[in-house]
Amino acid sequence: MHRDHFYTLTASCPDQVGIIARVTGFMAEQGGWILESSFHSEADRYFMRLEIKADSLPFPLPEFLARFLPIAEGLAMDWKISDSAIKKRVVILVSQQEHCLYDLLARWQSKELDIEIPCILSNHDTFRSFVEWHGIPFHHVPVNQGAFEKIRHFFDEARGDTMVLARYMQILPPDLCATYAGRILNIHHSFLPSFMGAKPYHQAYERGVKLIGATCHYVTPDLDCGPIIEQDVIRIDHSDSPDDMVRYGKDIEKTVLARGLRYHLEDRVLMHGNKTIVFR
Amino acid sequence: MHRDHFYTLTASCPDQVGIIARVTGFMAEQGGWILESSFHSEADRYFMRLEIKADSLPFPLPEFLARFLPIAEGLAMDWKISDSAIKKRVVILVSQQEHCLYDLLARWQSKELDIEIPCILSNHDTFRSFVEWHGIPFHHVPVNQGAFEKIRHFFDEARGDTMVLARYMQILPPDLCATYAGRILNIHHSFLPSFMGAKPYHQAYERGVKLIGATCHYVTPDLDCGPIIEQDVIRIDHSDSPDDMVRYGKDIEKTVLARGLRYHLEDRVLMHGNKTIVFR
Amino acid sequence: MHRDHFYTLTASCPDQVGIIARVTGFMAEQGGWILESSFHSEADRYFMRLEIKADSLPFPLPEFLARFLPIAEGLAMDWKISDSAIKKRVVILVSQQEHCLYDLLARWQSKELDIEIPCILSNHDTFRSFVEWHGIPFHHVPVNQGAFEKIRHFFDEARGDTMVLARYMQILPPDLCATYAGRILNIHHSFLPSFMGAKPYHQAYERGVKLIGATCHYVTPDLDCGPIIEQDVIRIDHSDSPDDMVRYGKDIEKTVLARGLRYHLEDRVLMHGNKTIVFR
Amino acid sequence: MHRDHFYTLTASCPDQVGIIARVTGFMAEQGGWILESSFHSEADRYFMRLEIKADSLPFPLPEFLARFLPIAEGLAMDWKISDSAIKKRVVILVSQQEHCLYDLLARWQSKELDIEIPCILSNHDTFRSFVEWHGIPFHHVPVNQGAFEKIRHFFDEARGDTMVLARYMQILPPDLCATYAGRILNIHHSFLPSFMGAKPYHQAYERGVKLIGATCHYVTPDLDCGPIIEQDVIRIDHSDSPDDMVRYGKDIEKTVLARGLRYHLEDRVLMHGNKTIVFR
Repeated sequence: MHRDHFYTLTASCPDQVGIIARVTGFMAEQGGWILESSFHSEADRYFMRLEIKADSLPFPLPEFLARFLPIAEGLAMDWKISDSAIKKRVVILVSQQEHCLYDLLARWQSKELDIEIPCILSNHDTFRSFVEWHGIPFHHVPVNQGAFEKIRHFFDEARGDTMVLARYMQILPPDLCATYAGRILNIHHSFLPSFMGAKPYHQAYERGVKLIGATCHYVTPDLDCGPIIEQDVIRIDHSDSPDDMVRYGKDIEKTVLARGLRYHLEDRVLMHGNKTIVFR
Repeated sequence: MHRDHFYTLTASCPDQVGIIARVTGFMAEQGGWILESSFHSEADRYFMRLEIKADSLPFPLPEFLARFLPIAEGLAMDWKISDSAIKKRVVILVSQQEHCLYDLLARWQSKELDIEIPCILSNHDTFRSFVEWHGIPFHHVPVNQGAFEKIRHFFDEARGDTMVLARYMQILPPDLCATYAGRILNIHHSFLPSFMGAKPYHQAYERGVKLIGATCHYVTPDLDCGPIIEQDVIRIDHSDSPDDMVRYGKDIEKTVLARGLRYHLEDRVLMHGNKTIVFR
Repeated sequence: MHRDHFYTLTASCPDQVGIIARVTGFMAEQGGWILESSFHSEADRYFMRLEIKADSLPFPLPEFLARFLPIAEGLAMDWKISDSAIKKRVVILVSQQEHCLYDLLARWQSKELDIEIPCILSNHDTFRSFVEWHGIPFHHVPVNQGAFEKIRHFFDEARGDTMVLARYMQILPPDLCATYAGRILNIHHSFLPSFMGAKPYHQAYERGVKLIGATCHYVTPDLDCGPIIEQDVIRIDHSDSPDDMVRYGKDIEKTVLARGLRYHLEDRVLMHGNKTIVFR
Repeated sequence: MHRDHFYTLTASCPDQVGIIARVTGFMAEQGGWILESSFHSEADRYFMRLEIKADSLPFPLPEFLARFLPIAEGLAMDWKISDSAIKKRVVILVSQQEHCLYDLLARWQSKELDIEIPCILSNHDTFRSFVEWHGIPFHHVPVNQGAFEKIRHFFDEARGDTMVLARYMQILPPDLCATYAGRILNIHHSFLPSFMGAKPYHQAYERGVKLIGATCHYVTPDLDCGPIIEQDVIRIDHSDSPDDMVRYGKDIEKTVLARGLRYHLEDRVLMHGNKTIVFR
C-alpha cells in the first residue's frame, strides 16, 4: 500500500467506447493525480481500478463521491471508492494450526498489512495467550449450536470489513456466506478444483500428483467452489508422505492467503460471476 | 544419459533388512562400479535403481543377468536390467499440433534424446514432409474402423519400446492400453486430476484458476487417470483468454512431456499401483 | 496477438496530471475502441501502451497519425504507432545449437509468432537444409573479417525490424549494436547479472548455485549488460553436472527467448534508461 | 523429521568400488533397518547419508560407533552419526525485522522444527518481549567493541550446535566464522552470486531484473561467498518499487531460510569445498 493518502475507485460497467476517457477526463478536470490505473474488458463488461492521490483533489471524499455520481450513473456502473486513510477491519478465524496466524500477525506487526484486527475468533482456546500478547481480543467460540450466531455477532460488533478463515476448518452455514458475500476469504489446502473437501493432502497422496497447491478464494455456500483469488503450488516427489505434504503445504498456504488477502484489502479483486479480475 | 556404457537395474521387492547390502554386495564382488543409486521404501515395498559401469564387470550382460538371478529370486524381486548401448525405440503419435513434435525432434536431432524413432504415426497427413525431412518414416493412419489395429501393427513392426502420444488427441481402446501397459505415455493439457477429458483450457477458463498445467502420465483404460510421471504449471491471469491459455500451455506441455519421456527412457520411473516412483 | 486488426500506440512522456484523459479523450472523440490499455509512471516519466481497434476509427492510419500528432507534441511524447496488419520482419542468427531455432520455427509455422522471417544467418552451415525446408533463405556467414558487414547487409536487404541472436555465440561489434539499438535481442544462458560472459553453466557449477537461469535482453555494446526483457530459472541440485545444466538450461533459454521476443514484437517493451517496462 | 528414533550417518570418502556394499553390509549384519539412503559421487569423492532405525540395532549408539569405526577407517571416511533423540540446539540472531523470527518460532512452536532454542540474541531490544513470551531467553547485544565476544560467550554457554543469522544484518568477524565453520547459517536477500553486500533489492531494482531471490548459505570469512544450501526466486515486474521488492523478498527469505535450516539440522547438507551436497 502506498505511503500517500489516496482513494481507490473500483468499478465495472457495460463495455462501450469512451469509458476510460469519461472517467479519467473527470479526474483530470478536478486536478486528480492518478497513481495507478488498470483496465480490463471481458464478455461485454468493463472493469477498472484507479488510485487517485487524495490531496491532488481540491475537496474531500464526500464531495468527490457526489461529483462522480453522474459519471457512474451515466455508465451504469457498479462502483465504490475507498479511502486509504481508513484502515480495513479484518476479523481472523483460526483453529489449532499456527502457521497462517503467525504469518498474518507478523505482517500486521510490521505494518506490511496496515489493517485493524479488532478480534480473533477460534473454536479452540489454543492461541488465546499468543493473540492477547499482541493486544488483540480473542474469543473462544466452541463448535456447538449457536456458534455461528456468535461469530456473526462478534464480527458485526467489531464492525468487520473482512472475515479471514485462516485454516479455520469449519464449514460456514449458507446464510452466513450470503450475508457477507465477497467479504469472507478462505485458504484451501489444495490446488482447486482438485481435491475439494476434507484431507486434500491425503487425496493428493493417493492420486500421486507431483505438485501440491493452495487456493485463496471467496467463501460461497458451495464448499470450495467460490471465486478463486490466488493459487500457488510446490513440487513434491514420491518420497514425501502425507505428513511431509502437510508441512510443505503450510508454506504455500500462508503465502497464498497473505497475497490473496492483500489483493482483497487493496481493492484489487473485482468479481465477475464466479471468477475474479485481480489487478495486481 | 551418461557417456559411459552402463547397465541400469530397476527393481522392487518386499521390504526387509539387508536388501541394499545384498544387491550392492553382489555388485562389489563382481567389481561393479555403481555410477548412480537410488532407493525408496513405501508401504512395505522396496524400490531401487542402480547404474553400473559396463566395463567394470568382467563379463557381458547375459552372464550378469544369470549371476544376478539368484539374488533377485531370493528377494522376490520384480526386476529388469537395461543396457545403455541399446537405444530405445520410440514411436510417436501426433495429430495437427506442432509443438511437441518439433520439440521431440529437436532433442532427438541433437542426441539429447539418444533414441531411435522408427516411425511417426498421425491421423492427419500434415507433418509428413517435415517428419520425412528428418529421415523418419511417416504413416498416415486416418481415424476409422481398423485405425488402432494399424497402429498396433506399425508399433510392433517397428519393434517399438515406447509409444508417445504427443498431443495425439484420440482415445486409445482398452485392449491397446492393456497390451502396452506401462509403455504408452500421454501428455494431458491440464494439471490432473483437474480438468480431465476434452477442452481442459476452456474448463480452466470457466473455473477461473490462476495457474494452468500439464501432466505426463501412463495411458490406462481409464481416460486421464493413469499413473502420473511429471507435472508442471504456469501462471495466468484474468486477461488471458482460452486461446492465450492454449498458447501458454504448449510451453509446459512440451517441457513436461520431454521430462517425463526422459525419466521413462532412463528407467527412472517405477510403478506402484496407480502411482509412480521417479528416481530423478 | 489479437485476431482483430488493431493499432498499437506506445509512448512515454514527462509525468503530469491528465495524460490518460488527453490520450483516451482523443481516442473517444474519434470513436476509437480501446482493446487493451496499460499505464505506468516511474521517476517523473509516464509510460503507456494502447491497442485501438482499427475499424473503429473512421479513417486510415496516416490520418490517425496526423491527428494524434498535436496531442503527442503537447505532451512532449516519445511515441510510435504500429499496425497489426503489417507483419514484423525478424532475422534470426544461429550457431550450431538447435533448440532455439527449432522452437522459433515451430512457433512461426503455427502462426503463434505471426511474423515474416526473411532470412536466417549463421556462422556455420549446419542448419541450411533444415531452414531451407521451411522455405526460408539461409546465409552462411563464416566468422572472419567482414562478417559483421555481411550481417548488416543481409539484415538491411531483408528490411529487418528485429534481429534475434538465438544462441549465436558471437559478440557483435559496438557499431552494429548502436545502429540497431533496441532492435537486437539476445538470449543469455544465465540469470543475469550473475555469470556474464563465457561458459555461464560452468561458472554456475563452480559456484554451487541451486537454480540456473536464462535472460532475454537487448544487446548493447556492454556485453550481457543491456536492458533485461525477461528471465526465468530452473532448479538443479548437486547431482547435476555442467552437461546436465546445459541440457536443463536449453528448456528455459528457448522459453525465455520466445516470451521476450513476443513482448518485443507486440510492442509491450518500453525502455527507460537501462531498464524495461514490460506491459504484459 | 521421522517419528521413529533413528541415527543419521553422514560420510564422505575417496571413491572406489564397493563403498555402499561395505557400509550397508555392516548395517545388515547388525540387523540395522535403513529408513532412508542417499549416495552421490563427485570428482573422485563419495558422499552418503543413511538413516538407521535405532531399535533395529541390538546395542546403543556408543557400541554402534565403536563397531563402525573400522569400516570408516578402512574407507578413510570423514563421518559422523547423529541421534534423532537428541535435539539440536539452535541459537538465533536477529535485528529489527520480524519475518524470519516469527516464521522460525511458528515452526518451533508446532514442533515442525523439533529443536531447542536456548536463546535468541539481537543488536536491538525490539523483540525481547515477543521472544520471552515464548519462554525463550533473550539477550540484547548492542553493536560495540566486544559484541562478538559476547555472542561467542552466549552461544558457547548455550551449548549451541547451530547459529542462525535470521536477517541479523551484522558482519561476523573472521575468527568467529572460523571457530564455527559449517555451523553458522545466513539468509542473504538476493539470488547469489548476484547482488552481494548491502541493499541487494536496490541493486536489483537498478539492474532491472525480472526475478528477485534469496540464498541460505554457510557463513565464511568471505562476505556472502560461503557454500550455498538453498535458493529461491520470485517474479517481480516494472511496477515494483524497491519497497515492494523488500516486501516480496521477505516471503522467500523466510521460506528459503527455513528449508536450508531444516536440511542442515537433518544432516542433509555435506560440504565439498565451497559447494554443498544436499540430500533432500
